[in-house]
Amino acid sequence: MGFLEQYVEGIPELDMEASRAAAAHIGNLTVPPGALGKLESLAVQLAGITGRIKPSFEKKAVIVMAADHGVCEEGVSAFPQEVTTQMIHNFLSGGAAVNVLARQAGAKVVCVDIGVNNDISHPELVSRKIRFGTANMAKGPAMTRAEAIRAIETGISIVEEEVRRGVSIFVTGEMGIGNTTASAAVMCAMTNTEPAKAAGRGTGLDDERLKHKIGVIEKALQLNAPDAADPIDVLAKVGGLEIGGLIGVILGAAANRCPVVIDGFISSAAALLARVISPEAAGYMIASHISQEQGHRQLLEALDLRPGLDLDMRIGEGTGGVLGLTLVDAACRIVSEMATFESAGIAGSGV
Amino acid sequence: MGFLEQYVEGIPELDMEASRAAAAHIGNLTVPPGALGKLESLAVQLAGITGRIKPSFEKKAVIVMAADHGVCEEGVSAFPQEVTTQMIHNFLSGGAAVNVLARQAGAKVVCVDIGVNNDISHPELVSRKIRFGTANMAKGPAMTRAEAIRAIETGISIVEEEVRRGVSIFVTGEMGIGNTTASAAVMCAMTNTEPAKAAGRGTGLDDERLKHKIGVIEKALQLNAPDAADPIDVLAKVGGLEIGGLIGVILGAAANRCPVVIDGFISSAAALLARVISPEAAGYMIASHISQEQGHRQLLEALDLRPGLDLDMRIGEGTGGVLGLTLVDAACRIVSEMATFESAGIAGSGV
Repeated sequence: MGFLEQYVEGIPELDMEASRAAAAHIGNLTVPPGALGKLESLAVQLAGITGRIKPSFEKKAVIVMAADHGVCEEGVSAFPQEVTTQMIHNFLSGGAAVNVLARQAGAKVVCVDIGVNNDISHPELVSRKIRFGTANMAKGPAMTRAEAIRAIETGISIVEEEVRRGVSIFVTGEMGIGNTTASAAVMCAMTNTEPAKAAGRGTGLDDERLKHKIGVIEKALQLNAPDAADPIDVLAKVGGLEIGGLIGVILGAAANRCPVVIDGFISSAAALLARVISPEAAGYMIASHISQEQGHRQLLEALDLRPGLDLDMRIGEGTGGVLGLTLVDAACRIVSEMATFESAGIAGSGV
Repeated sequence: MGFLEQYVEGIPELDMEASRAAAAHIGNLTVPPGALGKLESLAVQLAGITGRIKPSFEKKAVIVMAADHGVCEEGVSAFPQEVTTQMIHNFLSGGAAVNVLARQAGAKVVCVDIGVNNDISHPELVSRKIRFGTANMAKGPAMTRAEAIRAIETGISIVEEEVRRGVSIFVTGEMGIGNTTASAAVMCAMTNTEPAKAAGRGTGLDDERLKHKIGVIEKALQLNAPDAADPIDVLAKVGGLEIGGLIGVILGAAANRCPVVIDGFISSAAALLARVISPEAAGYMIASHISQEQGHRQLLEALDLRPGLDLDMRIGEGTGGVLGLTLVDAACRIVSEMATFESAGIAGSGV
């Protein structure tokens, strides 16, 4: 049994007793039953994840996995591939949207080169390059099975390092020109959706180029015939290195009983693969936002995730995810700081 | 001309030049055009409100207007009327949901007795009682026209005081057993909606009691015949004292060029009246969340507000509004802290 299979076996089930105790506590708080909506279900889930009724998360990290995509040569993105590298420098100097919103949330940004098509070195960049971008999936598999497994294991090792540094909650983030194409292909392969329903405009394609992108996805699926029962096969054939890395982030968080906040479309595609690799990992996933990318709503439904933010964003990076940390904080504060009907001397419902 | 009419005439139009400058600045930030969705439109709106491209809001306040409703004697709420008073004590001791979420947002809670059906005194309570609850609108007008105007002016005077203390952003909050009934009646009167589509379960009515609540609203509308062209008539006949107070909060914020974050169903009913009293005030309203109360979606559409939070909450108090402050902060940080394409040396879209 390889490292990955063994690691996945170690992912614990949620602590249902802690979840029940949290639900009972919430039932005594000074609000009508259920009136705090998703904040209540989030608090119950966080108890199940951590085993604590009143959890708190001091150190937070968004893991931004960056990689390039060979399929870019088909002209599937509004931006040139070089932008992946340029944006990494922007992340490292703190000027990107994810940096700004992570500062607001009190989260650190961990930027990982897991497969950028360029030599980059920077003291704060985590260099774990597996290859210089994937191959063009419209002409053959994006990567080998061994590389796909290595991408997942890379994500796991980064989470393990951050857990040793005291991080207790993770957010998935990514950068990679062309990665909505790979994510849509993953979605199609795993959920048997037509490319025309899964593919979106990404960073801003017009109608004609969107149609072209759909054709490229159709071609890649037909040529590679990924096996929906084998998520690693799907990742290798039509996925991406950053998608693999994020699968590892999700599995690593779950193995350490840490919540992992799922960002947008690309992160959700990774989550879709992660929950087949480990059904237990699904319980550790926290929804954040619904993005404007066409397939995201259906992907969230497939994941059974109900996000609290609806901001029409379509940028990725982890931006929606770090905003979602506010809702996690709110859920934690509700269970920790609110008065109960008894403590506040308030009459119950007359229903 | 009375004080209110004169005050309303002083509400300035938005600074469209500042909004245009903010939009131009956002167009240069390192994101694909429009990719930050509602955060971008919020930043543009905040520039129009404040006249500054990079605004920030140091001191924040949620104004919780509390009042009772004579219509409670018809049995329209799941909770007894005494809960209004009990919850005020909860607000004052810091244990209610709005206190907890306001602490997270860095906002102070200003609790106002504008018409509670009890004598309450507490050093931190702002006592501006106009009367001991409204009259039962199912038997006659809820209050006189003079009282309705006084309620609005009370909200204005509280905002003016807080502005003098340095508050630069406001959130609407409220407490009042029975106030979803009054708000639904206001919505029906103003938008010509059937009570069955405007009335919701409030704090938790079952089907039978919801049907009864709808009947009470129908009766109140028929009996009082509020004039949709005259929002103060609607407020007086089928509204509530806290709804009047919140109209004042909205007008006061607008007059001082401060954004005002609109909470849930009751706050939205107040906003609906406020924008007829002053069309200019509409531009100062910031959406926060869509609540679970049945009529809220339609009410938000009537207000042309597009909330970023969808949390299935149905508690009011200002809870969704203070959570919405996070989105305001995010919009402010985006325009203040993000790099531009030029400063980061990033290639533009190839579209």
